[in-house]
Amino acid sequence: MSEASTNHRRHQLILMPSGRRGDVAHADTLLDAARQLGVELESICGGRQTCGKCLVAPEFGQFPKHHITSAPEHLSPPDADEQIYAEKHGLDLSRERLACAVHLLGDALLHIPESSLARKQVVRKEAGDLAIDLKPAVQMVYVAVPPAELGGRGDWPRLKAALAEQWNLPDLTIDPHLLPHIQTTLRETNGAVTATIWHNREVIRLEPGYAESLYGLAIDIGSTTLAGHLCDLRTGAVIATETMMNPQVRYGEDLISRISYATEPQGMSRMHHAIVRAINDLSKNAAEAAGIAPHEITDMVLVGNTVMHHLMLGINPVEIGHLPFALATDDALDLQARDLGFKTIHEGARVHLLPCVAGYVGADNVAVLLAEYPHLDEGITLVVDIGTNAEILLCQGERILSASSPTGPAFEGAQITHGQRAAAGAIERVRIVDGGVRYKVVGDARWNDELNEGESLRPTGICGSGIIEIVAELFTAGLISGHGKFVEDAADRSDRIRLHGRLGEFVLAAADESATGSEIVITQKDIRAIQLAKAALYSGVRLLMDHLGIQAVDRIRLAGAFGSYIDPLYAMRIGLIPDCALDRVTAVGNAAGDGARIALLNVDQRQMIQDLVRRVEYVETAAESNFQEYFVDALLLPHAVDAFPHLDQIGGWE
Amino acid sequence: MSEASTNHRRHQLILMPSGRRGDVAHADTLLDAARQLGVELESICGGRQTCGKCLVAPEFGQFPKHHITSAPEHLSPPDADEQIYAEKHGLDLSRERLACAVHLLGDALLHIPESSLARKQVVRKEAGDLAIDLKPAVQMVYVAVPPAELGGRGDWPRLKAALAEQWNLPDLTIDPHLLPHIQTTLRETNGAVTATIWHNREVIRLEPGYAESLYGLAIDIGSTTLAGHLCDLRTGAVIATETMMNPQVRYGEDLISRISYATEPQGMSRMHHAIVRAINDLSKNAAEAAGIAPHEITDMVLVGNTVMHHLMLGINPVEIGHLPFALATDDALDLQARDLGFKTIHEGARVHLLPCVAGYVGADNVAVLLAEYPHLDEGITLVVDIGTNAEILLCQGERILSASSPTGPAFEGAQITHGQRAAAGAIERVRIVDGGVRYKVVGDARWNDELNEGESLRPTGICGSGIIEIVAELFTAGLISGHGKFVEDAADRSDRIRLHGRLGEFVLAAADESATGSEIVITQKDIRAIQLAKAALYSGVRLLMDHLGIQAVDRIRLAGAFGSYIDPLYAMRIGLIPDCALDRVTAVGNAAGDGARIALLNVDQRQMIQDLVRRVEYVETAAESNFQEYFVDALLLPHAVDAFPHLDQIGGWE
Repeated sequence: MSEASTNHRRHQLILMPSGRRGDVAHADTLLDAARQLGVELESICGGRQTCGKCLVAPEFGQFPKHHITSAPEHLSPPDADEQIYAEKHGLDLSRERLACAVHLLGDALLHIPESSLARKQVVRKEAGDLAIDLKPAVQMVYVAVPPAELGGRGDWPRLKAALAEQWNLPDLTIDPHLLPHIQTTLRETNGAVTATIWHNREVIRLEPGYAESLYGLAIDIGSTTLAGHLCDLRTGAVIATETMMNPQVRYGEDLISRISYATEPQGMSRMHHAIVRAINDLSKNAAEAAGIAPHEITDMVLVGNTVMHHLMLGINPVEIGHLPFALATDDALDLQARDLGFKTIHEGARVHLLPCVAGYVGADNVAVLLAEYPHLDEGITLVVDIGTNAEILLCQGERILSASSPTGPAFEGAQITHGQRAAAGAIERVRIVDGGVRYKVVGDARWNDELNEGESLRPTGICGSGIIEIVAELFTAGLISGHGKFVEDAADRSDRIRLHGRLGEFVLAAADESATGSEIVITQKDIRAIQLAKAALYSGVRLLMDHLGIQAVDRIRLAGAFGSYIDPLYAMRIGLIPDCALDRVTAVGNAAGDGARIALLNVDQRQMIQDLVRRVEYVETAAESNFQEYFVDALLLPHAVDAFPHLDQIGGWE
Repeated sequence: MSEASTNHRRHQLILMPSGRRGDVAHADTLLDAARQLGVELESICGGRQTCGKCLVAPEFGQFPKHHITSAPEHLSPPDADEQIYAEKHGLDLSRERLACAVHLLGDALLHIPESSLARKQVVRKEAGDLAIDLKPAVQMVYVAVPPAELGGRGDWPRLKAALAEQWNLPDLTIDPHLLPHIQTTLRETNGAVTATIWHNREVIRLEPGYAESLYGLAIDIGSTTLAGHLCDLRTGAVIATETMMNPQVRYGEDLISRISYATEPQGMSRMHHAIVRAINDLSKNAAEAAGIAPHEITDMVLVGNTVMHHLMLGINPVEIGHLPFALATDDALDLQARDLGFKTIHEGARVHLLPCVAGYVGADNVAVLLAEYPHLDEGITLVVDIGTNAEILLCQGERILSASSPTGPAFEGAQITHGQRAAAGAIERVRIVDGGVRYKVVGDARWNDELNEGESLRPTGICGSGIIEIVAELFTAGLISGHGKFVEDAADRSDRIRLHGRLGEFVLAAADESATGSEIVITQKDIRAIQLAKAALYSGVRLLMDHLGIQAVDRIRLAGAFGSYIDPLYAMRIGLIPDCALDRVTAVGNAAGDGARIALLNVDQRQMIQDLVRRVEYVETAAESNFQEYFVDALLLPHAVDAFPHLDQIGGWE
């Protein structure tokens, strides 16, 4: 480096594929030089040639287009440390070098592999039209702390000073849980430690020597299901996805019954502890599935509807149960995992909760907004996330409207006689042909009449998409009326129908066909449940359309597990969703979970959504006088034929 | 107020006793007007005429000296609210008014009682040459939060907005432990709540309606004794002082034995939990003594030597036991009480730890510095705080030197055959006259030969000051040599001396005189213990004097309980302290406790001492080659007669 101070020559450096170029001083390291050109390379070890994150590929030769000649002698030769690293990790130094080890001695052109860029990009979702930078709330830095001296500063002040000097991280605080360990950790490796820093503000983990495990967990707390993505925060990759039942289900299927149970003695405390235990278990299971230790998880993002959000925080949700549906807080929160009772993840781990909107429109809907960005679409976009509650977003230009509708768990297969989740064996497709029935089950591509002699699909039950299809087919076949009742001569027209006075049932699979050895039927009561659920969703959507003053939407995105299985044609046939060109109705998967994951991977997105959420116009369905009217109308099958011109076009409607 | 906007007249206002004067707008309230003149009045209720903190006394008449005429009609008459307050609290509105209720309609002269000033001053110490403003880390504000509205913000965001608007406290966070209570608290009194705010940053307590209990606890964790001052943070008054034994004593009397015990299995954990339990108990006892509930305590300041500091934080102090005596941290710390295991005080309470210097010079010595400000004295000041460890500060001009010396517990009466603390019955003064003995005990002003027939002082033991005096008297009487050994013919010269070969003992009180029914004696071993203790202290002081290049000090302040009982003449006679004019040796009481209390009452002082402590020059006695030499010399009685010219002048020396 002394050479640099006596030599004022500068060299041209070009970085590919970005094409960035500039003059840099003689003898600067490639790491420093790239930084000067605005390209931040990965570096955990801080230039000690141990982490290998800053690999670059020099390209030699004449590059007339770039007016540059790059030659091997323009880069300083490998020193002992770099050679040791290369031998240990099988690196070919003629093709790749450690940017922190190489001094620039002449003009050079380097290729920077994507993996060496400090700000990696991860694709927003599998469908993938948006990409986000990787910028998690926690980062790891390797730092060399000078030894303790007689009369000198203590270990934490020395570590703090080293972090300020070596990483430009001034004014850090330390999580007090680290204080008892700081001396043993520093001594173990002569002061060389890796610190995990939260939000450039606080040291939350300290490990001896060089370490690089950085994991975070994004969890969507649904009323019925918890879904967690465990992510490697250094790559953005999902390394495990775990789901489990919400153990609060035993205290009530839907939000209203949970709220009601919270007013009973011990009710609140039971539900709170159940969800905290479940999150602890989920964290443990996800870590196990990924082959890491749970305490390697240092950051967490949680989303959920407002009732789940409050129960998790130990807040009684009773006020969400009545006007004006007041939330204790709708702000985003940054909390300590240990304050929330999360004990399996790292003791210093942090938890971020996305903001809520109001009433029943919670952080899960905000996460969908973050995952889908529907307000950036051209025209009008409707996003519905159908769970026990349906979360609805309707966007046109700058306006974002949101509501929540209590669909109940029918679409998830609950409260349906032979309902079940969309797992292998569940009937998911149904056709009625001449009074007989055809069906398909999850896990098999064939219809039941396409099997070989002696084979059977052995259905176990019927899932949400199957329920919708059977209702639509019964109506189309004229076996049930617009009011959802079996018509009087239904039993004469199909031998699968049995009527008991005013009630009745349709046999989907006979006892000898099914895996359970019992018939699989759909009853009058099941049809009613679907009518109630679809009416709740449709009237919520309709209300938002009124608020926007529109009669149709340009596209519909169906989020959630149910949204992935449902056939848009049938969803429209029973009037679950408003009219729309069928090819513009798409399933977007677990958007709430994706939104939680995006917030986990990028702190700027957390800030962005906090600002955006305050622009969301909240519509409380229960407080709107039109809602009851729309709801009653929407109970009918179909509730308004002329509202579905696209069905007419494709001939799917009678 | 609309009047004010249409009337541009201004009036003269004079505030006594400060004499501040100025022009203020017609119809401004006296509260606002005083603020404009730079006089901040107390106000918790924010001008709602409920707290009565802003009382002012108008004075009416002509005041030629001030060129002002003040008349009753220059103040708006009492409105209904003020009259209600006056009736309820027996206020005479012709003499005192609520400044927030009165609008200025003409020139006025007001007397502002000390109790209405927002920044009260508390005297730095009882001796009292310095005063500090009352500016605690926690403040309470009364705030009116608008009710929840359909689709509106949650309760915390509304509270936050109200605090920002009504109290200019922007960007507050909330302690998550409050979230479960925020809705019930707000509903109880229609949104009128009192928030306790920490450092203008975080809401840590929320109470329904108007509340004003604000208490803090300052604790000095000594090796042997814990001393706590419970303070009313609204007045600065100490409302209870509690002391208790440090329960760690059972694991070792002095710092070295505690450090040693910390390396044994469970040793660290036992000592840590013992001190946490003790602080919980002390908090409870202090609250009980003051008649408040422990959970009304919302702030705490802790000081202690470095070993106590580390044990309290759960940090193993093993590294303080050997070179380079490294501290895990010497920085000041702001922590959550619950993170430290403090469970009797408020759940959201905070704890501030003063910074340490290095090695054995801990937050207790820093607290002494904060209480005494010796560096602002003219000339050279020595401050010694004598406990199980002696903390030494030597200051000249801008230089502040500090050291710690392991005196052991002898001065506190421990490890002395009949030693005890300075409590009623302890022999505290001793004179040897012609081989016989005179003594006084704590709690009685008379000498034992001044009693009436049949009376007795019934001594229970001997305390630190008594031990020093008997050693000095034995030496002055020629009964022990300069090496501290009984002289060969000692028993012939005093019938109170018994020799057993090379050892011996002096009978201070016969069995029939004492309260215990046994003799009270001082043994050869006791004399040795005093020699070791005084040599440790003196050689520490001597070393600091060397570092400063001085031969004498201008004044000596003796801190701590022992320092309050000791007779400076005798302290000098045995060579405990260096030579100094006796009238410039003063006792300053529990300076470490006072320093902790100052930090509790004023956050600016916390910041000031953090900056000041980094200027302290640390001298590690154990690492200095001269220390052993000084120590051996200082074992002698007297160790260097010519070093004590002031003793010669007053004839106290032979």
